[in-house]
Amino acid sequence: MMEYIKKPMEIEDRSFVIIGEEMGEHNFTEEELKIVKRTIHTTGDFDYKNIVYIREGSIDAAKELLKGGVKIYTDTNMAKSGINKMALKKLNCSVECYVSNEEVAKIAKERGITRSMAGVEKAVEDGVEFFVFGNAPTALYKLMELTAEGKASPKFVVGAPVGFVGAAESKEEAEKRLQIPIVTIRGRKGGSNVAAAIVNALMYMVVDRE
Amino acid sequence: MMEYIKKPMEIEDRSFVIIGEEMGEHNFTEEELKIVKRTIHTTGDFDYKNIVYIREGSIDAAKELLKGGVKIYTDTNMAKSGINKMALKKLNCSVECYVSNEEVAKIAKERGITRSMAGVEKAVEDGVEFFVFGNAPTALYKLMELTAEGKASPKFVVGAPVGFVGAAESKEEAEKRLQIPIVTIRGRKGGSNVAAAIVNALMYMVVDRE
Repeated sequence: MMEYIKKPMEIEDRSFVIIGEEMGEHNFTEEELKIVKRTIHTTGDFDYKNIVYIREGSIDAAKELLKGGVKIYTDTNMAKSGINKMALKKLNCSVECYVSNEEVAKIAKERGITRSMAGVEKAVEDGVEFFVFGNAPTALYKLMELTAEGKASPKFVVGAPVGFVGAAESKEEAEKRLQIPIVTIRGRKGGSNVAAAIVNALMYMVVDRE
Repeated sequence: MMEYIKKPMEIEDRSFVIIGEEMGEHNFTEEELKIVKRTIHTTGDFDYKNIVYIREGSIDAAKELLKGGVKIYTDTNMAKSGINKMALKKLNCSVECYVSNEEVAKIAKERGITRSMAGVEKAVEDGVEFFVFGNAPTALYKLMELTAEGKASPKFVVGAPVGFVGAAESKEEAEKRLQIPIVTIRGRKGGSNVAAAIVNALMYMVVDRE
């Protein structure tokens, strides 16, 4: 029958070697490179080398939060699914997404806003400080609004909404308005898988893989 | 404050118009185009125009299965998360993923295979005929093996594993060995988000969006 590698970690290790060989010149630090490589790994798209933005000091800030057992909020269930549960558990961290929450759906309908926006409001009420956006520009805008109003105090944000209407703009605004540790995917690309990959890369810096 | 569109369906409709305007010349049928556009929508990557492969007759086959309330198997929880639950419900379809299943994890460990492979075995035992692969080349290979051995009879397959070790090869093999309705992403690109997008595009052909 067909011959193929059957060990996941072996596949992943070899993948990262190939990515390193093919990505060419860069100015990333060793830790930044781990994030960039993982976004390429999850998409098969070397363009991520050019569009991942990591504000100085953001990796250290994220690592501190993760070590402290932070609660993470994601804008989609897909991003939540993509975050490694074993690593989360080892770090005593947790991840929440409220877009399917009935109360949030009701509030969104009543107020004519997206469930993504209502979800962020609830997360802020819950005291979340670590936000991961892989899909919804509206969620990222809502966090900016709440921050500007002094209602939210995010300590780390992954801004990776994907798309053609508002996504690129939302990330550009976030870089300007959120003067906090932040990782973004510039332009139209991004996605829940990319957002989760960034969180996983950060977790694997502070916890052993299984 | 910032002005931005807050209606998800309006954002999606406008996105599809923009994608259509920017993607340029193509030879896709109207239904094929819906799949291709949705993969671009979920990734922000126009390269999908060149790498989506849809075997003739595959869309009709998938639509028939969906109308019949089929059980879908996905190789990742992320792909499962990305499939629209409201549309699934309207179609009386369901989606399963066994990689986090304890029994499957035990079998995988005992036999030294991936949980993805053991998950496919269990899905085949359960009589699943509609398979969606967004991550694991090993799972796609396992389905090919079981099919060659006469143990599995898949009726529709989405082959979209992403990556640098075995992913492209697994999809090339699948196109050759699985002479059934199939949609693949050629080359290294793909992913759970892309796999889910393909299923959603197919569902939206037979059921109204909310």
